[in-house]
Amino acid sequence: MKKSLGPNTLVYPTPVLVVCTYDNEGNPNAMTAAWGGICCSSPPCVAISLRKATYTYGNLMSKKAFTINIPSEKYVREADYFGMVSGKKEDKFAKTGLTPVKSDIVDAPYISEFPVNLECKIIQVIELGLHTQFIGEVMDAKIDDTIQEKGEPIIEQIKPLIFALDSRNYYGIGKQIGQAYSLGNEIGKEINS
Amino acid sequence: MKKSLGPNTLVYPTPVLVVCTYDNEGNPNAMTAAWGGICCSSPPCVAISLRKATYTYGNLMSKKAFTINIPSEKYVREADYFGMVSGKKEDKFAKTGLTPVKSDIVDAPYISEFPVNLECKIIQVIELGLHTQFIGEVMDAKIDDTIQEKGEPIIEQIKPLIFALDSRNYYGIGKQIGQAYSLGNEIGKEINS
Repeated sequence: MKKSLGPNTLVYPTPVLVVCTYDNEGNPNAMTAAWGGICCSSPPCVAISLRKATYTYGNLMSKKAFTINIPSEKYVREADYFGMVSGKKEDKFAKTGLTPVKSDIVDAPYISEFPVNLECKIIQVIELGLHTQFIGEVMDAKIDDTIQEKGEPIIEQIKPLIFALDSRNYYGIGKQIGQAYSLGNEIGKEINS
Repeated sequence: MKKSLGPNTLVYPTPVLVVCTYDNEGNPNAMTAAWGGICCSSPPCVAISLRKATYTYGNLMSKKAFTINIPSEKYVREADYFGMVSGKKEDKFAKTGLTPVKSDIVDAPYISEFPVNLECKIIQVIELGLHTQFIGEVMDAKIDDTIQEKGEPIIEQIKPLIFALDSRNYYGIGKQIGQAYSLGNEIGKEINS
C-alpha cells in the first residue's frame, strides 16, 4: 500500500554538485547544489537550480558561465561547507584552501583538487519559483589524469557523493549491481521460459 | 593534472528514473531516464529529459502529465528493460508483470511495486537539442507505507539505483559518510585551530 506525502520532490539519488563562478570583481566562489543533473546529450547540457538569494545567482546572471565540480568522498567537508556559507560573507576558497583555476574557455573558475570539472556556458535561464534553473552547455569536461589509467570503472575512482533528502546525510557509491542494456534481457527470457 | 575530454556530460551520480505515461488509447507505458532530477522546491518540480524518438515523448506532449517511479535494487532488471525497449513495440507492463495504477490526480499511471511515485503535471517543455526537457510540478508524492516505520534512513529502505555513465553499470547506494549542514563546520575549526 502507498501513503501520500503531498507535493514533495522525493527523488533518489540526488547529486552533490559544486557550482563555481566569478563575481564582478573577479573573486571566485563555490556553492553546493543537489538540484541538478544532465538534461541533454547533444549539445551536451547540464542543469542546476538555485535560489535568487544566493551569491552565485548574481554571478551566473552577470557572467553567463559556471563550472560544475564533482567532489570525491574525501572532500565531503569542503562540499558541505560550500553549501552552508554564502560567498557574500566568506572567501570560501581561502577558507578551504582549495585552488580555483581560471577556465580558458568560459568566464568561471574550476576546482583543481576535485576529480571532474565541467566548463559551462549558460544557454537558458528558466524561472520556476523559489529556484531558477540554469542550463549550461558543457564546452569542455576535465578529469584527473590519474583516472582511467587503472582498470576499474571511473565512478569507483571518482567516488562521488550522494545527498539523501530525508536524513540530510551524504552517502558514497555502493556496490556494482549489473550491466545496463543487458540485465533487461532477462525479462523476456523469464516470460518465454 | 587535468586532461580534457571535450564537451561531455560527465556527471556523477545520475539517477534511474522510470517515467510512466498513457498513450492516446489509454495504454500505460514506462521508460527509464537517467537525465533528470529535482529543479525547484516551491512549487516542487522535477525535470526529465528524453528524445523525441521515444514513445513517451508523444504521450507527454498529448497528456501533459507523467509519473516518476523510483525502482529499488530488486527491480533493476525491470528498470533496465524499460530503458531498452520501445512502448511502440511492446506492452512493457504485460511483459514485466508490474502493475500500472491510474493516478487520481494526473493523467498518468504509476508503478505499484516501486517504493516511490511522484505524480507530475507538465508546466514547461524546453527544447534543447537531441533531448527535450519536461518540467513537472509534483502534485503528490507516494511512498510504500512500510517505509519510514523503521528507524533507518528512508534512502536505505528504498535502495535506489545509480547509473554510471562511463561503464554503463548500475550501482547501489553505499555507506553513510556524514551529516549535511554539519560536516562543513569542521572547515572553520581547522582554520581557527
